[in-house]
Amino acid sequence: MITIAVDCMGGDHGPRVTLPACMHFLNLHPDVQLILVGLPESMAGFAHVRAKVVLASEVVTMDDPLEVALRRKKDSSMRVAITQVKDGAAQAVVSAGNTGALMAISRYLLKTLDGIDRPAIAGQIPNAKGAATTVLDMGANVDCSAAHLLQFAVMGSALVSVLSGEENPSVGLLNIGEEAIKGNEVIKKAGELLRSAAKSGDLNFYGNVEGNDIFKGTADIVVCDGFVGNVALKASEGLAKMIVDFLKKEFSHNIFTKFAAITAYPVISALKKRMDHRRYNGGALLGLRGLVFKSHGSADEVAFGFALGRAYDAARNNLLDQVRVRIAHAAPLLSDSAVSPQAELVVTG
Amino acid sequence: MITIAVDCMGGDHGPRVTLPACMHFLNLHPDVQLILVGLPESMAGFAHVRAKVVLASEVVTMDDPLEVALRRKKDSSMRVAITQVKDGAAQAVVSAGNTGALMAISRYLLKTLDGIDRPAIAGQIPNAKGAATTVLDMGANVDCSAAHLLQFAVMGSALVSVLSGEENPSVGLLNIGEEAIKGNEVIKKAGELLRSAAKSGDLNFYGNVEGNDIFKGTADIVVCDGFVGNVALKASEGLAKMIVDFLKKEFSHNIFTKFAAITAYPVISALKKRMDHRRYNGGALLGLRGLVFKSHGSADEVAFGFALGRAYDAARNNLLDQVRVRIAHAAPLLSDSAVSPQAELVVTG
Repeated sequence: MITIAVDCMGGDHGPRVTLPACMHFLNLHPDVQLILVGLPESMAGFAHVRAKVVLASEVVTMDDPLEVALRRKKDSSMRVAITQVKDGAAQAVVSAGNTGALMAISRYLLKTLDGIDRPAIAGQIPNAKGAATTVLDMGANVDCSAAHLLQFAVMGSALVSVLSGEENPSVGLLNIGEEAIKGNEVIKKAGELLRSAAKSGDLNFYGNVEGNDIFKGTADIVVCDGFVGNVALKASEGLAKMIVDFLKKEFSHNIFTKFAAITAYPVISALKKRMDHRRYNGGALLGLRGLVFKSHGSADEVAFGFALGRAYDAARNNLLDQVRVRIAHAAPLLSDSAVSPQAELVVTG
Repeated sequence: MITIAVDCMGGDHGPRVTLPACMHFLNLHPDVQLILVGLPESMAGFAHVRAKVVLASEVVTMDDPLEVALRRKKDSSMRVAITQVKDGAAQAVVSAGNTGALMAISRYLLKTLDGIDRPAIAGQIPNAKGAATTVLDMGANVDCSAAHLLQFAVMGSALVSVLSGEENPSVGLLNIGEEAIKGNEVIKKAGELLRSAAKSGDLNFYGNVEGNDIFKGTADIVVCDGFVGNVALKASEGLAKMIVDFLKKEFSHNIFTKFAAITAYPVISALKKRMDHRRYNGGALLGLRGLVFKSHGSADEVAFGFALGRAYDAARNNLLDQVRVRIAHAAPLLSDSAVSPQAELVVTG
């Protein structure tokens, strides 16, 4: 039996989306138990033989400063849900709440794994191969050292090998040119570390990749600092939205284009499906002593279900052990490359 | 009469693209003279009453290290073309050659403007408003200080006000959250400088923007370091290509989708036009004592014509003077924020 804790209050829609998604997920997976955490009034109507409701008295909002989320709201649904993992009651936790707060509270309660300075957020971006490229960090760390990027590469390799079954997934280093000479000092140094890691059999280093390679699917995993990863993700979301909005407007222009919209429906609908970010919902917070998954705040029932699915797959395939094994194997390299911590987005408790 | 020097050998296609584009441009603009620089064998067939051919004996290739481009190939078409601007024979120069070499040689020959530490590349990205967002830096500087970002903002404002006629274009600071608290130390400091510049009337600061705002058209200008700008641009190019390839494949699937392609033709063709990066070809190298425009290396005749057009508009609207005026006005702020130079991609001679 796999047990997942769910922060039912997180996200733009809260229990209105999370509870139906949880009910559906329970009915799909007979080997799943859920621990549902939320305010008493929100949880009142929910009942399922494999669901346990745990009440919380507070909710972390999207605007809460980390300080408030971490130190004041000690009985928030987010914190109570993460505590289930800390206490061993659940193998993973899913929340659609405030990303910074989720990272900070997870880090405070669960602590980081040995050999990892900073947890990272690994997200999936659909690529031209019909698969998804795993990108990390997506925004937890705004300044990264070369050693951090190496840690991300090792953790990302564990994630992808566990979730996709690809034994030895390839890792690309995001840069502004394919030549090893390009990029800033951190990137150059990271390239050296990744080449060493490839030599010692710790990972499968493809080499430098550029922004377009994320969508080409050149490498299974792309590592970058959280600032760059976040900008690339949001820029792409912005472009995708622009294209979809443009097609909608143009197809509803007049009677001819409306007819065209009908005949082109299968194509446009296939495009929509391919671009549907809901299928790739569920970012993994890697590097913690526990499995934490972040759903997009705007997730609907379908999207939240995918985030639950990622947590479920990670838990039943022992992602945490796999990350530990890979980090242990890379330990000599990771300790050689260790540096003093730099400024970061996430405060620790 | 406006005189533009053209490096005819640059780009993936060289004279095969640049010469027909120049001929077309000359015929369109009776007030334009071109100084065409290239190898003797390439230039032999070209003749126009308002074109002067200047010969060069070497070509900078896409793979040439900066060292070679800058110090060895002293008679390259690129260098000879830039020299035309330095000597006052031309008001602007256009090249589709190696970006790093173009920046390095321009910087060495033309020098930077007073108050500017580092030139930047300003490119245009089509947005949902049917206009284009000007983004700088697109890749000349891989590490930027807050002072550099302020300089980019001032120069970008001059560029957009000259080329679009928008008197007081808005500037957004690329960040990973709209809140002023987010981002790394450089971004936070840059935010303070930009707010001061807005108070002193040096520019119209919108505030922080995120990656998707580039495509929304939230601000006329988006400033960021060259690493981030380059990744965002290339990621978006990659996504656009993925979508176009997907539509092509799906529309040629069977007889029904082929019929759909015909009825949907006006819509798809409007989308293609909107997304046509050729219309936005021609990045400005800002901060130099001369006007230098960079065409995309893969530019075809149409695209290269747009780059020529940008150089022409910049020259006849005295972009250089406008940049100088704005920098002089912002001088007190710029000198307050001056910092020691950091590592950068472009070497100086």
